[in-house]
Amino acid sequence: MGLRYGVIGTGAIGGYYGGKLAKAGNEVHFLFHSDYEYVKENGLNISSIDGDFKLFPVSAYHDTKEMPVCDVVLVGLKSTNNHLLKELLPPLLHKDTLVILIQNGLGLEEDLHATFPSLYIAGGLAFICSNKTGKGHIHHLDYGSLNLGLYSGPEKLLEEVCKDLRNAGIKANILELATARWKKLVWNIPYNGLTVALNTTTDKLMNHPSSLKLIHDLMLEVIHASHYLGYPIPDSYAEEMLEMTKVMTPYSPSMKLDFENKRPLEIEYIYSFPIKKALKAGFRMSKVEMLEKELEFIQANYL
Amino acid sequence: MGLRYGVIGTGAIGGYYGGKLAKAGNEVHFLFHSDYEYVKENGLNISSIDGDFKLFPVSAYHDTKEMPVCDVVLVGLKSTNNHLLKELLPPLLHKDTLVILIQNGLGLEEDLHATFPSLYIAGGLAFICSNKTGKGHIHHLDYGSLNLGLYSGPEKLLEEVCKDLRNAGIKANILELATARWKKLVWNIPYNGLTVALNTTTDKLMNHPSSLKLIHDLMLEVIHASHYLGYPIPDSYAEEMLEMTKVMTPYSPSMKLDFENKRPLEIEYIYSFPIKKALKAGFRMSKVEMLEKELEFIQANYL
Repeated sequence: MGLRYGVIGTGAIGGYYGGKLAKAGNEVHFLFHSDYEYVKENGLNISSIDGDFKLFPVSAYHDTKEMPVCDVVLVGLKSTNNHLLKELLPPLLHKDTLVILIQNGLGLEEDLHATFPSLYIAGGLAFICSNKTGKGHIHHLDYGSLNLGLYSGPEKLLEEVCKDLRNAGIKANILELATARWKKLVWNIPYNGLTVALNTTTDKLMNHPSSLKLIHDLMLEVIHASHYLGYPIPDSYAEEMLEMTKVMTPYSPSMKLDFENKRPLEIEYIYSFPIKKALKAGFRMSKVEMLEKELEFIQANYL
Repeated sequence: MGLRYGVIGTGAIGGYYGGKLAKAGNEVHFLFHSDYEYVKENGLNISSIDGDFKLFPVSAYHDTKEMPVCDVVLVGLKSTNNHLLKELLPPLLHKDTLVILIQNGLGLEEDLHATFPSLYIAGGLAFICSNKTGKGHIHHLDYGSLNLGLYSGPEKLLEEVCKDLRNAGIKANILELATARWKKLVWNIPYNGLTVALNTTTDKLMNHPSSLKLIHDLMLEVIHASHYLGYPIPDSYAEEMLEMTKVMTPYSPSMKLDFENKRPLEIEYIYSFPIKKALKAGFRMSKVEMLEKELEFIQANYL
């Protein structure tokens, strides 16, 4: 018997990975919000560089209270909605359920653990360019790998999930969670914030020496902060990320899309929590702090 | 016999101070660019909180080659045009002419000295809210004092200028130039850059805790840099500037006006030169650096 999956937050991320698992034959139950009626009638459409596909019918729900308990819950919510998990999760949980937070930032697992102290928790780091383009429609533009890291619970269960993902055609790996989250921040902190603060896209940032220098400086601050916390990210990882981004499709990171759609920005977990964590360890991320403050001002004045 | 004044750059600053000197009976010759014809026919109009006045006729010129040699030249150009001084100044100079750069930033006198090694040079720091609102029209909204500091030349001459300014109703003082320029940067660096980078005004910046915190941090960086260079600006000067700005008329600093009018931004003397100077003395203004890079990106992409 395979694992039974639940997906909370069936958007660009939850919809893509949940969709791939369902297409590969896994039992996957999806929670929808505004798309529920549409998906019930029309299914879930995924346009992907790896080949388009459609799920129909979809085991779709409008309320987690209607959903069966699951072995694994993939959370693809915006982290600005994580306060909802306190209400959303309990109907899906049995005593060995693993909740995987496929979200950007730092401190997500800590906060969930504080609410559900005995819950098995993992983090998921998606390296993917994917957007929700309309009701029940997800557009997967580039990449697609998913790195998993255990926060609490049995390793064996996470390994099973990793195997299911690979069988579904996803490049999945298990990594040390904290290091993986900090590595992800090396990209997320400069590009998410600067595309909003400078109202631009990744390619324009890469094409001017001043923004390129600033991105590099921000990356090095994040890397140096991670050193104070004992995580082994080499300085050269910044150049690696710059090189990767140079050849990437011009892209608006998720925070830019949130900004354009006047949704709350994920400032807390991507900026505020890492800043506090680093400061506690004795390192001040001065430029990252500035970006945080600019984003808070922008959120208060332009959203 | 009084001093003969020349004004290069008859805008919000040069027009106001030169206008006040002329009104008080001093001999003042003004260089105009696009306003020349208008001012010749209609005079120079100054709307001021201290009382409106009009100069007519105006000793106006379109070319410094037509102007008489002067004892004192007030330069009110945008510092982005200082490369023009090499051509503009020589016709106005006799062997004891004092050139006063009434401009924002740091390094202005150094650069002029490099071009004219034997020239008498002073700096002028205007604490004034003043805008050019149309051809031959200057609007003086608030404040108006002018601090002078000698870079090279005889103190006595600068003291005479100071006396002329006071007789013209200007609150003028002579200060140690480098300290005065760094003090001015404490205000200019946060407000000029952030009103552009966040596309806002001083009052909105003061009304949100995140931008207020960022302004304070930027001010402290500038103050700490000045300490590395040996200038005695106390940390409390930041709070003083914040308090002053809180009660100030909502204001778009000169860089914001330059941005709105798609003119080049004075990044070099307000940001790049101080950053380099501080770095050479061993202090990195990390947030100021970030603002510089953001402004350079904005200038390249939006002007």
